[in-house]
Amino acid sequence: MAKNDPYEILFEPVRIGPVTARNRFYQVPHCCGFGHIKPRGQAAMRAMKAAGGWAVVSTEETEIHPTSDLSPYAEQRIWDDRDLPALRLMTESVHEHGALAAVELAHNGFHAANLFTRMPSLAPVSMSINTLYPKQARAMDKRDIGNLRLWHRRAIRLAKQAGFDIVYVYAGHHMSTAHHFLNPVYNQRSDEYGGSLENRVRLTRELLDDAREEAAGDCAVAFRFAVDDMEGPDGMQADEEGRAVVEMLAELPDLWDVNVAGWENDSVTSRFEPGEGAQEAYTSFVKQVTSKPVVGVGRYTSPDHMVALVRKGVLDFIGAARPSISDPFLPEKIRERRFEDIRECIGCNICVSSDSHGVPIRCTQNPTMGEEWRRQWHPELIPPVREPARALVVGAGPAGLECALQLANRNCEVTLAEAGGRLGGRVLSESALPGLSAWKRVRDFRVRKLEQMGNAEIYLESPMDAGTVIELGAPHVFVATGATWRRDGIGRTSRKPLAVDSSMAVLTPDDIFAGRYPSAGPVVVYDDDQCYLAGVIAELLAEQTGDVTFITPAGVVSPWTSYTLEQARVQARLVSLDVGILTNRSLSGAAGGTVTSSCLFGGNDLAHECAALVLVTERVPDDSLAVSLRGNIAGGGTAIETLQVIGDALAPGLIADAVFSGHLAARDFQRDPDEVERELYLREIPAL
Amino acid sequence: MAKNDPYEILFEPVRIGPVTARNRFYQVPHCCGFGHIKPRGQAAMRAMKAAGGWAVVSTEETEIHPTSDLSPYAEQRIWDDRDLPALRLMTESVHEHGALAAVELAHNGFHAANLFTRMPSLAPVSMSINTLYPKQARAMDKRDIGNLRLWHRRAIRLAKQAGFDIVYVYAGHHMSTAHHFLNPVYNQRSDEYGGSLENRVRLTRELLDDAREEAAGDCAVAFRFAVDDMEGPDGMQADEEGRAVVEMLAELPDLWDVNVAGWENDSVTSRFEPGEGAQEAYTSFVKQVTSKPVVGVGRYTSPDHMVALVRKGVLDFIGAARPSISDPFLPEKIRERRFEDIRECIGCNICVSSDSHGVPIRCTQNPTMGEEWRRQWHPELIPPVREPARALVVGAGPAGLECALQLANRNCEVTLAEAGGRLGGRVLSESALPGLSAWKRVRDFRVRKLEQMGNAEIYLESPMDAGTVIELGAPHVFVATGATWRRDGIGRTSRKPLAVDSSMAVLTPDDIFAGRYPSAGPVVVYDDDQCYLAGVIAELLAEQTGDVTFITPAGVVSPWTSYTLEQARVQARLVSLDVGILTNRSLSGAAGGTVTSSCLFGGNDLAHECAALVLVTERVPDDSLAVSLRGNIAGGGTAIETLQVIGDALAPGLIADAVFSGHLAARDFQRDPDEVERELYLREIPAL
Repeated sequence: MAKNDPYEILFEPVRIGPVTARNRFYQVPHCCGFGHIKPRGQAAMRAMKAAGGWAVVSTEETEIHPTSDLSPYAEQRIWDDRDLPALRLMTESVHEHGALAAVELAHNGFHAANLFTRMPSLAPVSMSINTLYPKQARAMDKRDIGNLRLWHRRAIRLAKQAGFDIVYVYAGHHMSTAHHFLNPVYNQRSDEYGGSLENRVRLTRELLDDAREEAAGDCAVAFRFAVDDMEGPDGMQADEEGRAVVEMLAELPDLWDVNVAGWENDSVTSRFEPGEGAQEAYTSFVKQVTSKPVVGVGRYTSPDHMVALVRKGVLDFIGAARPSISDPFLPEKIRERRFEDIRECIGCNICVSSDSHGVPIRCTQNPTMGEEWRRQWHPELIPPVREPARALVVGAGPAGLECALQLANRNCEVTLAEAGGRLGGRVLSESALPGLSAWKRVRDFRVRKLEQMGNAEIYLESPMDAGTVIELGAPHVFVATGATWRRDGIGRTSRKPLAVDSSMAVLTPDDIFAGRYPSAGPVVVYDDDQCYLAGVIAELLAEQTGDVTFITPAGVVSPWTSYTLEQARVQARLVSLDVGILTNRSLSGAAGGTVTSSCLFGGNDLAHECAALVLVTERVPDDSLAVSLRGNIAGGGTAIETLQVIGDALAPGLIADAVFSGHLAARDFQRDPDEVERELYLREIPAL
Repeated sequence: MAKNDPYEILFEPVRIGPVTARNRFYQVPHCCGFGHIKPRGQAAMRAMKAAGGWAVVSTEETEIHPTSDLSPYAEQRIWDDRDLPALRLMTESVHEHGALAAVELAHNGFHAANLFTRMPSLAPVSMSINTLYPKQARAMDKRDIGNLRLWHRRAIRLAKQAGFDIVYVYAGHHMSTAHHFLNPVYNQRSDEYGGSLENRVRLTRELLDDAREEAAGDCAVAFRFAVDDMEGPDGMQADEEGRAVVEMLAELPDLWDVNVAGWENDSVTSRFEPGEGAQEAYTSFVKQVTSKPVVGVGRYTSPDHMVALVRKGVLDFIGAARPSISDPFLPEKIRERRFEDIRECIGCNICVSSDSHGVPIRCTQNPTMGEEWRRQWHPELIPPVREPARALVVGAGPAGLECALQLANRNCEVTLAEAGGRLGGRVLSESALPGLSAWKRVRDFRVRKLEQMGNAEIYLESPMDAGTVIELGAPHVFVATGATWRRDGIGRTSRKPLAVDSSMAVLTPDDIFAGRYPSAGPVVVYDDDQCYLAGVIAELLAEQTGDVTFITPAGVVSPWTSYTLEQARVQARLVSLDVGILTNRSLSGAAGGTVTSSCLFGGNDLAHECAALVLVTERVPDDSLAVSLRGNIAGGGTAIETLQVIGDALAPGLIADAVFSGHLAARDFQRDPDEVERELYLREIPAL
């Protein structure tokens, strides 16, 4: 590659204090649902990032003391030397691939409920902890502050023993004590640690001083700092106190890792922030204030944007959490100028939801994410099949596309038959809804790759029945025919069909996807799915008809979206569109221009004027093709050797679940079933 | 003891198939938050029950296959032989104390989200899983049913290897596949496993047959069965299908373990079911139908009631989950006729909440519960102090009472000084609220014990300031002065004082405790605590004034009570009392007979007529005595050697937290601080 190649700048080594990063790709600390509970899964996942070319690979927040106990959540721990073996496994795995390992040391203050250790939570003042638990944090006295500094020092010594190259001082996401002390809302102390900015910064400055001393030039000290609390004048703002803090501490850390708080703003979904670089308006000043290298994030996947950031002096390092999850090999692909191969993050926050659920990280775009150790999956490598084979995949939604792509990657001869005129299935349908356009990348990436392969044929407008499948003669059939939204009201709250008068216009998400919108209002959207879809459809219809009522048995709109950090924004969006919202109510009937709702807790029934009722409740797998085929196979006389149902046709779930299902079926194709079964039981077990 | 002693019947050995229970006390399966994640904690906790005299000690639900993966919840597992070491640790620990060990084998069907294994969930028909996650369970086909039976058989073989004496077939709590097949709401299959009761019972019968065959006389087969779904005619009812099932399967298991479904009905709190034996109306028929021994539960703590149950032929075994948590030594105490020593369960479901939170089990009455391994705590034994010592405990709430009692147990000379006229503090106040009278047992048990001790002196009406404390001359002072509810509106949602006009009557829970009720309605109760108290106070005031509006930033009333299985009942109670409920709203002002609320999501402000505003938001620790004393100690000239603040005065929390805090302070008194510190870091770590 020529030296004047614009992308070469991304591969310059950069010094961070005493260590040197091999390039400008920096995986900032991010949660992953492995934590201290699943150390082998953690190490293998982080190692994959290192293998993919990231110069720095960081842990998630790492509890430094039993007063910072995030149980039951699977975050990282560095309490004492019993944590060293697991941490060494991570650093050694990362070093093996030439990357630096960083650890985000955290004392979580009132963000830690300490439900396992049963220690009091600590905070600048006595206040409620930010877990829904009837427990308040204790105001820290001077001895507590002194102890915190000692714990932090010890954690740095342990981190050095564990082989980390970079240790963090962490003041971000409203999740650490240092950050709580910085924030004027939380820090209402009257001593030298509260009040003026100088005072509120004191603890952070002390931690940085301590860190430099303990690091002693053996490892770098990074400072993760939220330059803006995104709370307006109530909190720190980037152009006021945020900047002042950077000015005060400019040369103290070896690296500035800057973002905005809280987590829902740092990791805003594409639904609410579609573009790259949303934080630049807040963080771009930092490099003007400090001579130290700066890393920032912005869901960056465009190499040109990355180059511009470095050239314009906005950032020294391209920070990434989500893009490194979606594509651990992003740096390698840019280094090799294989831009088309980048599996771009769609900003859906399924990664975040895994951690919120307390289970290993999952990704819609990258089905191998979180399976590096357990299933030994690699995002870029898949072994060829043992025997050349011909496979038919029926249905080109997310499961079918992924399955076809991976079968083709495994050297099968693949036929992909799609009943409709376009590839993508529900991904196309859902990505056409307000805010979800980035989701289309799930389709685009796979279609682009498939179209490049010589061993995959794609047929559109090719609805299949058992006869046509049998006629095609493929010995291996994968049925990915999707699911249909129920029209009978059965869902989480009721397993009995809703009594609906035939005069009532009833629509489902499938009608909306097909462009069959209500012809007139008022519209009632009933959400007994309680996840994300009904909220998006209500938004669409409110924009179109202006007269929408949203009824749900849940206590809030789209409660599951709290796991993706979106819930408050979802409900605020509907409120801003004047959608009437009725929570804690189930639908009890629909007739003659009226639907009736009942309070879950026995209150009065209510009647709602309704010209069209949209039911978002549950799905029925479209498995009739599979059922027919099974009948034919049982009857003999077909050439079908294996038949598998995948994706929503097997069990409706997230798009991420469908992609995973397609990937799993392709991976396990022709594998020894006993081996597949054994793998299923693999997990990490406590030492006795 | 005389042979005609009525209690002797409780200590008769009872045969359960091939094994014999030493007496009639039976710890039925219950969750504990240890599960497969913390095996040493689990084993030590179960062993304590065995040491306390229980004849049978059971595990919690134990996943038999990766399609029954309850991650991240800490339930038990028996997937393959890698689970055997942990399970053997439990059985051996239980056997060591002469008890039988039972294992509740469970395939959790659509109750399992399989978020770790990523397998499809299984159910009788395709339907939503009962976790808030956008994933549906797959309808089981015949091969799935066959596999389930094979997994269940394998689990029994593994259970035998692990040393269990009793294996369970589990059809209860709507949590197992067998139960899902029994229930006509869930099971709408059209094959021989659905439809008629005979068909719906088929799977259970097969599992029982399989279990008998695999058990092969080496261990007993227990059947846990919910005789009533508590869903009225929609589900199975005890006097109809419930009875029919018992008749159909009467002699198949070696033991019937009967209850009602779901968990919120089986483990109903004392707030909604104050008495013992609430399930007898449903389960008492069972013994008339089967010749096999029967165990049932009913939060039994009265020995006379227990004797009557056996004598009247209602039960063969006194089953217990919660009473065995509150007092692991309940059987021993009855055997020794030390009835007064029984630490009676208060039915608060803090035990349940621990499991719901995913952390080790805690108990309000028994602060040692869950600390048997980690802190090596024994509920009945506490080592004496090294040096005779004189201690003053200030405040006789839950922390002070427990601290004083345990210091006295450790042979200290204890003075307990209470400012008010009664012992109990907030326990007295809260137990006077509707439904909470059983909570008074926390006070009564400790007061009764303290009054019996020669080395504890109790002073009522003895408010203490620094001067009087110093004057008393006790070298060791424990400050348990509690906390005061805030009157300024600061809470979870806002850290700014609420603007309240002086004309508005503002009350706090402390006013209610003191009998200062609103003199007139309408009353607005504002709940930004979001736990349990505001809901109870609203109930009280609704009964008194009849005009109450409940406003909360939460999506439902008292959302934390979902962890104690009470939320639906709490909200239904308020609805039944005509309380107006406004959710997702914070208070923005109060003036001139009106309070104003704002929608959290940007909707319109609302004005609410209000003569009295009750603020339930947050507490301020009453630590002024401690602060003064610290000043005096620093200034020298006092005889105080150690000063500790405990309970709500340190950090407001649950009553359980206060009791724990008092216990911890007493346990750690005079212990080597380094040893105390080391203990804090103890935890179970994954094997590498």
